[in-house]
Amino acid sequence: MRQSRRSAVDPFIVMDVMEAARAAEDAGRHIIHMEVGQPGTGAPRAARDLLAAEMAKGPLGYTVALGRPDLRAAIAALYGEWYDVDLDPARVILTSGASGAFILAFSALFDAGDRVGLGEPCYPSYRQILTAMSLVPVGLRTDLDTRYQPTPAHLSRDLAGLIVASPANPTGTMLDKPALSDLARATAAQGISLISDEIYHGLHYGARATSALEVTDDVYVINSFSKYFSMTGWRLGWMVVPKDHVRTIERLAQNLFICPSHASQIAALGALSPEGRAELDGHRAVYARNRDIMLSGLAAMGLTGAAPADGAFYVYLDVSALTDDSLALSTDILARAGVAVTPGLDFDKARGGSFLRLSYARSTPEIAEGMDRLAAYFGARG
Amino acid sequence: MRQSRRSAVDPFIVMDVMEAARAAEDAGRHIIHMEVGQPGTGAPRAARDLLAAEMAKGPLGYTVALGRPDLRAAIAALYGEWYDVDLDPARVILTSGASGAFILAFSALFDAGDRVGLGEPCYPSYRQILTAMSLVPVGLRTDLDTRYQPTPAHLSRDLAGLIVASPANPTGTMLDKPALSDLARATAAQGISLISDEIYHGLHYGARATSALEVTDDVYVINSFSKYFSMTGWRLGWMVVPKDHVRTIERLAQNLFICPSHASQIAALGALSPEGRAELDGHRAVYARNRDIMLSGLAAMGLTGAAPADGAFYVYLDVSALTDDSLALSTDILARAGVAVTPGLDFDKARGGSFLRLSYARSTPEIAEGMDRLAAYFGARG
Repeated sequence: MRQSRRSAVDPFIVMDVMEAARAAEDAGRHIIHMEVGQPGTGAPRAARDLLAAEMAKGPLGYTVALGRPDLRAAIAALYGEWYDVDLDPARVILTSGASGAFILAFSALFDAGDRVGLGEPCYPSYRQILTAMSLVPVGLRTDLDTRYQPTPAHLSRDLAGLIVASPANPTGTMLDKPALSDLARATAAQGISLISDEIYHGLHYGARATSALEVTDDVYVINSFSKYFSMTGWRLGWMVVPKDHVRTIERLAQNLFICPSHASQIAALGALSPEGRAELDGHRAVYARNRDIMLSGLAAMGLTGAAPADGAFYVYLDVSALTDDSLALSTDILARAGVAVTPGLDFDKARGGSFLRLSYARSTPEIAEGMDRLAAYFGARG
Repeated sequence: MRQSRRSAVDPFIVMDVMEAARAAEDAGRHIIHMEVGQPGTGAPRAARDLLAAEMAKGPLGYTVALGRPDLRAAIAALYGEWYDVDLDPARVILTSGASGAFILAFSALFDAGDRVGLGEPCYPSYRQILTAMSLVPVGLRTDLDTRYQPTPAHLSRDLAGLIVASPANPTGTMLDKPALSDLARATAAQGISLISDEIYHGLHYGARATSALEVTDDVYVINSFSKYFSMTGWRLGWMVVPKDHVRTIERLAQNLFICPSHASQIAALGALSPEGRAELDGHRAVYARNRDIMLSGLAAMGLTGAAPADGAFYVYLDVSALTDDSLALSTDILARAGVAVTPGLDFDKARGGSFLRLSYARSTPEIAEGMDRLAAYFGARG
């Protein structure tokens, strides 16, 4: 049976690292996981308790396509609390993970052949989802001097859309309010649809992240219960869209997804409770400690090429002084130090060979042990 | 912000009926729901118990993109039990509902502009998902003489794909093994990729349904935990693909979905247990009684235009002797008899005005009461 051209998306290079780490563990070695993109913690206790109670009460059938109204209202309220934005719950749409939100957004905004800009380095799936949907990803090379974030100078009128992420994966850097505002104005002026990926919001270590909704209503904002809310495997995200796009998204969602998992929507309601939120804020405090350990540890090793780690749980490290083959370096670190780290190649094909991404999402003892191992490795390497 | 051309999918007409039914209930009326496309039952107790136990044990993080290996193996074993097919678990792919399977299948098989055939009447979302993915749905008009199923005579070489469903929604009709075999041979000969929607398998009232995997390996088979397994809101489906397509689907799934809900995968393992299966087979016995009540009731009213109700939980009724405006008829039935039924228009734009779909998925007392109301309605009318 014939396979489509658009299915020819790139494999993840990080999968090779993860497979090698699994093989090492199967062989009895102890591996520290700094390659992971998810919290080591699970859904808050309040989330699990609420679901257990609701499951016992009756069937969890389909919800309406846009999600449970109580959950949409709770999310809208979060925008008041976090950003002082008065958000109409009718603009909040629950999705099957942020992944489902991207599929809906790209369907609603772009036609086959449309060009969509991405600041590079970036989350590699943007590019692959665009390709699978017959769209054309356009990498916009960003550098440390703009915190690896795109600026109006990166834009051109041939773009139908622009995806920004703040805090970003892999860099952890954020767009501040003036920078986001400039991008919103420039994209609007050029007819470029702006998509703001805010899935790492809630995970910041200095100033909080700015939501694109603070600077414009003419934007698709995508968020998720996977990171701050610590519910990766539950596959629940949300999207805020302009009011006049809601009916379009509703029709697309009815057909493409029917609805997001009802069980996950209930768990999310629990996560948003005061008890749930308290537990989650505790996780953030752990990440903050882990981040300090990692940044000071790297500096002590003389590895000073970290991008400003404003948020999320990543450090994106320029190792160009050591290598232009980060895959070989990460393979060697795994083999000799027992630490799994991610080469930059998935995030930036052109320059990723000179970068590593280190995650501090696991427990503090794990991160501390990992840094000790890296110190020994780089010390021995000289 | 500009909206794409491909986002202009059709609204569901049934939504108007459902909204009117809700409004009637809000006004204090008692409505019998024969418009529903989902079981009135929830996930089996064994599914809920297993999830409750596993939730307490530790985080439910991402699974691998193709789904938990134990669940893939359990599904492969089901093909041995149900169809005597020896299926390699490596070909089984867990998806975010059958909806997610369609998105993956269409991405893997078709490029923008490709034409994909659908027997009409059919599940309306096929058409809308294809449109949203820049593909061209091609309705193939089917009639009672082929059980409203497509045949090799419907095919043409300009088709890149063909979607068949057995048992079908809205008709409940099945393709027997010779008919499915003929279609598999004809599509293969013409280079048309065959997609077999088997989401109502397990719900049959005479001979069991034939899986396309009994006649060919050169097919995408799509199934779901929503119908026989009674887990609609859990949004878990699966797909069986040719061996040489697994890597393609894996790469697409990693990027487009990351993974299906981990919680739902655990619940599905519970549903597949002997206790879960026993509970589910009990539901099928209820549907069988409901179907008898509905078919004999309609015949007693002189409504003899039902398609052969081989499986699923629908009766598709030709009411052309009464009307060519099934929306008006269903609105009148709701208003005067308090029974919600679905006009055929979503399933077949050309001829749906002469058809109603009646679901017998609810409890036996509800179905019996609904038939009494319909008998009074049509008695008074006729």
